[in-house]
Amino acid sequence: MFKNVRHFARRSTALQTSTIRSYSITGARAHQAFKVNSDRLWKDIHKTAQWSAPNATTEAGGLSRLSGTIEDKMARDWFADQVKSLGAKSYTVNATGSQFATFSGRGDSIPPIAMGSHLDSVTTGGRFDGPLGVIGALEVVRSFREQGIEHFAPISIINWTNEEGARFFPPLGSSCVFAGQSTVNAAHESKANNGSGETLGDALMSIGYVGNGPNTFEEFPLSAHFEIHVEQARALEKAGKPVGWVEGWQGISVFEATFRGEDGHANTYPMHGRRDALVGASRLIVELDNLAHVADGYTTATNIQSGPVGSCNIQSSTKLVFCLMHKELLSLNNMGQQAHEKARSIASMHGLELEWSRAMHLEPGHFWEEAVDCVRRACGGDRGMGARTDTAHDSTMTQLVCPTAMVFARSKDGVSHAAHEWTNREDCAESASVLGRAVLNFDQTLKKKHS
Amino acid sequence: MFKNVRHFARRSTALQTSTIRSYSITGARAHQAFKVNSDRLWKDIHKTAQWSAPNATTEAGGLSRLSGTIEDKMARDWFADQVKSLGAKSYTVNATGSQFATFSGRGDSIPPIAMGSHLDSVTTGGRFDGPLGVIGALEVVRSFREQGIEHFAPISIINWTNEEGARFFPPLGSSCVFAGQSTVNAAHESKANNGSGETLGDALMSIGYVGNGPNTFEEFPLSAHFEIHVEQARALEKAGKPVGWVEGWQGISVFEATFRGEDGHANTYPMHGRRDALVGASRLIVELDNLAHVADGYTTATNIQSGPVGSCNIQSSTKLVFCLMHKELLSLNNMGQQAHEKARSIASMHGLELEWSRAMHLEPGHFWEEAVDCVRRACGGDRGMGARTDTAHDSTMTQLVCPTAMVFARSKDGVSHAAHEWTNREDCAESASVLGRAVLNFDQTLKKKHS
Repeated sequence: MFKNVRHFARRSTALQTSTIRSYSITGARAHQAFKVNSDRLWKDIHKTAQWSAPNATTEAGGLSRLSGTIEDKMARDWFADQVKSLGAKSYTVNATGSQFATFSGRGDSIPPIAMGSHLDSVTTGGRFDGPLGVIGALEVVRSFREQGIEHFAPISIINWTNEEGARFFPPLGSSCVFAGQSTVNAAHESKANNGSGETLGDALMSIGYVGNGPNTFEEFPLSAHFEIHVEQARALEKAGKPVGWVEGWQGISVFEATFRGEDGHANTYPMHGRRDALVGASRLIVELDNLAHVADGYTTATNIQSGPVGSCNIQSSTKLVFCLMHKELLSLNNMGQQAHEKARSIASMHGLELEWSRAMHLEPGHFWEEAVDCVRRACGGDRGMGARTDTAHDSTMTQLVCPTAMVFARSKDGVSHAAHEWTNREDCAESASVLGRAVLNFDQTLKKKHS
Repeated sequence: MFKNVRHFARRSTALQTSTIRSYSITGARAHQAFKVNSDRLWKDIHKTAQWSAPNATTEAGGLSRLSGTIEDKMARDWFADQVKSLGAKSYTVNATGSQFATFSGRGDSIPPIAMGSHLDSVTTGGRFDGPLGVIGALEVVRSFREQGIEHFAPISIINWTNEEGARFFPPLGSSCVFAGQSTVNAAHESKANNGSGETLGDALMSIGYVGNGPNTFEEFPLSAHFEIHVEQARALEKAGKPVGWVEGWQGISVFEATFRGEDGHANTYPMHGRRDALVGASRLIVELDNLAHVADGYTTATNIQSGPVGSCNIQSSTKLVFCLMHKELLSLNNMGQQAHEKARSIASMHGLELEWSRAMHLEPGHFWEEAVDCVRRACGGDRGMGARTDTAHDSTMTQLVCPTAMVFARSKDGVSHAAHEWTNREDCAESASVLGRAVLNFDQTLKKKHS
């Protein structure tokens, strides 16, 4: 299992000073009219949704495309074909399976501006969380080409591997390595959440997606990273805005807690003296649910694996994965402490051993102002609004190493990670158009700086 | 999944009157000296423990031999070789994999007296729960042969399939069909507790143990059924008795409860309005733990399967298996009602749908007095005592159709279903000697009746 605590806080100056930190906001009014082909984008979102494992989610119009599965391979192969036929200067797959396609600009000696997201989904996912970011980026480049729109910086499209962490834990599997927060080996050793012992590395190998492309920002510097994502909340919907610029994110801590008790017969072992790991874990889940309300944050137990599997044994080992979320760092840290205290108290009450680790910690933060401003301006007029994401994205990794911002597309009812996740055709197109304009805005500043 | 509620209460007169309901207690003092070969029994218990899946339990000296696995096949093959080399008149395997070996008596026209138990174990089992009953029976027949002890009735040794229900639910997989409480098809369709979709039927087929032997009592009537089992409690140990006669059992209800909620993102879905199935199931587990103490019974949640598996989704479906135990039927039924009320209340609180079914219901009861008396007399002097089992056995199925009694062997600390389950050599041997003497006692009554 991946042992290091991933504590994501923006790194200090070394890398940041190597990228663009200041520039003047300039015009480029011509680019403000840029629009993608909404029909083509819409068609591809739904066409690619065919590569989905058959289950109730798929039947309900959702998407189930776990990392390293055959469905993932089909979507990846399609993406590779698309970028090659669009004339990518380079196309590579790195060791953690991420696909990088780069298109020449006129100033090819500077690092590319990247647009990236993920084609993988959760088991019970929708068609937009992830795919909109990748297919939207593809549509931007197609439309640039068609409309003869030139750019100074090269432009890269990235399909990041295992963003969701749905099949293999932890999430942000590849962008995390890219940002120097983990290693290729650790990512390859990411274990299956179902306890089967499978690893991400083996799964990627099985679909032929372990390549020799760049794994880190040091190997493949970016001038910036932009990402479209569905909002997964209702701020835009309530305000009647189709798009938004994402100013920052709430903090997230992910913990693994394992209670270990004692084996014994379910029917005959006296109640007094039992060391039932599942009762302990259940008490913690109930406490976590209460904690969310007390702390005005969010808590979710996302995975439980308990054994011995059977029907007539006291459960002697129960492993939980859960996440705590809060807008404020201090409150997030307090929630983590309280959760740990409750778990220790429960372990004491039930005579259990407790293994406790914080597997991931993303401090709340803000995207890079110069990148956010490019998105804000790209939204145009009163079409957009500032918003915050409540979860982590590949962009919350890239922001550690380069100017990063995100475009939000309005979500119906704020639903995501569910079959009925929905963003309508016009909002998808508008978010992609904003992405393209934001890239052109950022490109203007690079051009000015380097010419 | 097996749909019928298995409501185990002894059937009325039709079958019982076809068997021996009354007899006089007679002498047969010669048989009271019968003893098995303790070294051979002990050696075989430990020799057969080699057929065990490698895991922490096995390393700690326990046994992990799930039904239908290659280890199960090895133990079965050994058993078949042993009974054949002992000169069994017949050896058959039935459709649910149970092995029947029958040895001639002088009055071969009457149904055999059976000694049976199971060679399968739970995942984290010990070496005695099950194997002592089968290998002890084998040792009885070997010793009868060696010592020239004749019997009037034929004698059968039975290795019942899937008593534990550890790999496939429900337990008592074959004896339950034998007693007319289920069908071969339903047993074959018993699903894996790990949610893999495997079935008992497929597993038995894969090890070559689906045979054409007798499946039911109607096809293979027994004059009686006797079984040795480790006590799994501390009554004998506290009283300083190596053996006991089992007078009855406590009642057990096994329930399956599935909470269904709504898919959603673990980080972004507002706390208020969530329909989190795992929180609901956890509240029920905590309530069940409390219920045991309030009702002076036992409760255990023995299996939890929750999904979608991943690390960033609210759990939308959580299935629990749990059992309730009580000495008194009324209290057991009340516990079942209270558990259901609590589950409904939790479902209401969290906006969940609830699927609820009682998968098994074994009323508390008493073994057949004429069979128990044979064990009581076989214990001899003050070596034994009356006791009660707190769980179900193959004998709690056979008692539905024929005179049945059990022999208890003292358990160290009352532990079972754990690697450190232990019954010492002398107690194993004494329990097998008691089993042999009890069979001879019962045989005396049959002989008297038929001669």
